[in-house]
Amino acid sequence: MLSYDVVVIGSGPAGENGAIQASFLGKKVALVEKEAVPGGASANTGTIPSKALRETALAIQQARNRDAHGIEFRVSETVTVPELMGRRGLVTAREHSRIRSALNRAGVEQFRGVASFQDPHTIRVAVPDGGEQDLHAEVILLATGTRPFHPPQYAIDNARVYDSDSILMLDRIPRSLAILGGGVAGCEYASIFAALGVHVSIIDSKDRLLPWLDAELSTAMQDLFALAGIDMYQRTRAMRLEPGDKDVLVTLKDGSRLVAEKVLVAAGRIGNVESLNLGAAGLKATDKGLLEVNAYYQTAVPHVYAAGDLVGFPGLASTSMEQGRVAMNHACGGSRTQTLSSLLPVGIYTIPEVSGVGDTEEQLRARGHEYVVGKATLVGNARANLIGEAVGFVKVVADAHDGKLLGVHCIGPHASELVHLGQAVMSHGGNLNYFVEAVFNYPTLGEAYKYAAYDALEKMRERTNVRSIESAAAKK
Amino acid sequence: MLSYDVVVIGSGPAGENGAIQASFLGKKVALVEKEAVPGGASANTGTIPSKALRETALAIQQARNRDAHGIEFRVSETVTVPELMGRRGLVTAREHSRIRSALNRAGVEQFRGVASFQDPHTIRVAVPDGGEQDLHAEVILLATGTRPFHPPQYAIDNARVYDSDSILMLDRIPRSLAILGGGVAGCEYASIFAALGVHVSIIDSKDRLLPWLDAELSTAMQDLFALAGIDMYQRTRAMRLEPGDKDVLVTLKDGSRLVAEKVLVAAGRIGNVESLNLGAAGLKATDKGLLEVNAYYQTAVPHVYAAGDLVGFPGLASTSMEQGRVAMNHACGGSRTQTLSSLLPVGIYTIPEVSGVGDTEEQLRARGHEYVVGKATLVGNARANLIGEAVGFVKVVADAHDGKLLGVHCIGPHASELVHLGQAVMSHGGNLNYFVEAVFNYPTLGEAYKYAAYDALEKMRERTNVRSIESAAAKK
Repeated sequence: MLSYDVVVIGSGPAGENGAIQASFLGKKVALVEKEAVPGGASANTGTIPSKALRETALAIQQARNRDAHGIEFRVSETVTVPELMGRRGLVTAREHSRIRSALNRAGVEQFRGVASFQDPHTIRVAVPDGGEQDLHAEVILLATGTRPFHPPQYAIDNARVYDSDSILMLDRIPRSLAILGGGVAGCEYASIFAALGVHVSIIDSKDRLLPWLDAELSTAMQDLFALAGIDMYQRTRAMRLEPGDKDVLVTLKDGSRLVAEKVLVAAGRIGNVESLNLGAAGLKATDKGLLEVNAYYQTAVPHVYAAGDLVGFPGLASTSMEQGRVAMNHACGGSRTQTLSSLLPVGIYTIPEVSGVGDTEEQLRARGHEYVVGKATLVGNARANLIGEAVGFVKVVADAHDGKLLGVHCIGPHASELVHLGQAVMSHGGNLNYFVEAVFNYPTLGEAYKYAAYDALEKMRERTNVRSIESAAAKK
Repeated sequence: MLSYDVVVIGSGPAGENGAIQASFLGKKVALVEKEAVPGGASANTGTIPSKALRETALAIQQARNRDAHGIEFRVSETVTVPELMGRRGLVTAREHSRIRSALNRAGVEQFRGVASFQDPHTIRVAVPDGGEQDLHAEVILLATGTRPFHPPQYAIDNARVYDSDSILMLDRIPRSLAILGGGVAGCEYASIFAALGVHVSIIDSKDRLLPWLDAELSTAMQDLFALAGIDMYQRTRAMRLEPGDKDVLVTLKDGSRLVAEKVLVAAGRIGNVESLNLGAAGLKATDKGLLEVNAYYQTAVPHVYAAGDLVGFPGLASTSMEQGRVAMNHACGGSRTQTLSSLLPVGIYTIPEVSGVGDTEEQLRARGHEYVVGKATLVGNARANLIGEAVGFVKVVADAHDGKLLGVHCIGPHASELVHLGQAVMSHGGNLNYFVEAVFNYPTLGEAYKYAAYDALEKMRERTNVRSIESAAAKK
């Protein structure tokens, strides 16, 4: 039996980065991947492929908005969704080679096969040719990820009814698409297909889309969805799907019905734990196939760690990478911080992008923390107009007394990039004044921070004036 | 005679922001603009119009690179350059209304006409209908900007030979374009027209393009220009232009010749000072029509300030805005910093973008400061690949001993935005470790900072190892 300090299962963002971190700390590391290619759902089925489709949809929409005459931009009627993903193949291939060379450089030994526990310290790898290989491990990192959840009441046939993986194989852009579920995947696909000219409906059980976002951000996204012609059915669910020859009849809870050419079931994701034989390690997954972990990403069995989508929310590649690093840093006694940064940005790749970091207004209100808000709309931002995507805003939330930056919430072009700037200022304990005094390139989207900060400082002044008037009145 | 605390001449970025700053500090402010529309060269002739053309060229190039099948993207053969500027009209109109409403909100009184000194405290405004209006001012801010310089040896006829304003009026995309001058405007137009399929040549007297940039950045830009098929003739100049029926024959200093359908003379800019009657204020411009100022933007006459392009390098809208603010803050006794931030980003809107902030390697070497460099190429960045512009790099320069960030230099998609992140970290005295520990949205361009920081930290470790080996050897 081969023996390792660390065995990592899964080569998605959590597994890759966990393995490299452990190796960097001088450990002997093995990584087991069941697929022929590394990268998991991020590189192969979810993140990258959907973003490739998104870039094409966005380019079509921006070209329309940019309104440059003399340029023809036409989408062929027989185009398939895989064709529209353009460079997906190249991007995925580059990710594969990037991951492989990073693992090789770090000296991580790689095994192909399905991994399962024999006992708490032994992982058996069933290799594709039928053989087996047992690996002894002091520490184990489970990073097997998730797959689309298929609620039993919906028959996903990949002909009329799809999940968030198979939807990318569509052989034609449909006229209409009903999306069941208003989570991240549901929202991203809704806006992407709408930009491609599809009539999209979202059917969601919640009060608002992505309710964990800053409420103003989520509301702004809904408003822009409505403007893009997306129909929203909220606080309801699809009770019945009846596929016909040409379309699907969807019946909602209140009995109302709609017809769509295709249906996308975006009902969340479920953990890949079936083949792990968790019982042999003394572990048990939740009914969604997820593993519960502490702040160091240890499961109930301390030498078994879990990270990435497999531990649930937020299930974003960015966070998963860091979870893998943090977990292995803890396990291998690294000197870096052993818990996750408290400033985790969230990036939603809708059209337009939505991103936030730090406190939301709702969180601050709940804590009784006095704050001010400053906002700069991108309708007036020169760069946003030039790009052809002059929608959304940059919103800063700051302490009402000293102007310390507490949160940044953006919707609009490149929001997922823009939020990093506020995050850096927050991480260094920075203040609204930074944005007022900094010089920004012009024209840029980043400039919007300056105007948002001015707006927030104005609110701080108003509050001070009100307070001094009140205190003067109180003295009388 | 009307009397003001401050009279500002020119409503470009320096004038607008200077006037608003003075007004914000409680001063009575007048602003004089000779054109019917505000915004100066930034909104009307230079910055915004060229960026509008750039966005279209970039979209065409990205669409080509993104390689999405089933989408036709064709540029009509009879398209004019104004048509390709797409939303230029809309963007410019939005800038006009933004500036007007900002000035109105601040209570700045606006005068239309040509301003000139009567004496050091009196500005005469010649209004378009032929009347005159004298304004008395305690403080004067000159922000009249610049216009393209026309070297007398080149006959700019706007038929074969253009300057950087008139080139935007081309009624057709030429087959070939020779650009005289490798400054910012020359480089931006070279890459924009090359992306539009024009055969471009640059004729420049310097050793390298934009020699004040970090050398590696400037070299990378030249390499990408060469890859884009741009011919570079360096350390030379055009001695003679001979327009023919169909083209122009350009003769260089060494006697070699080239033929181009059109010629763009991009020989720098000259200050708009002729009508100011500077002598009446006791002032004199340089032979390039520029005014010399101290760190507070005071001219030789202390109550007369000058800011923006009129004071010369760098001549960027971003810096000009801040110069106007800083000047008026000093003049009006504001509490904010009264000198310009030492962290001035430079943004060059070539394709790809080039941007930098903080120290260059050359500056650090000259000061004998020990530093390390970390680089992350964007060829391996998932977002850059998705966008269809996977070129360039993010480069960080940090103190060799403590990892304090000293400079950031980027070339690639959205470089002018990306640099703001490094700038924020630097402004807060931040360190390479920030990037290693921060969680970045995925996929983003911003992530590249993390890999650049890893690279720099690796170099720091290598230096330490070399030093400990050397000191061990020394002990023997």
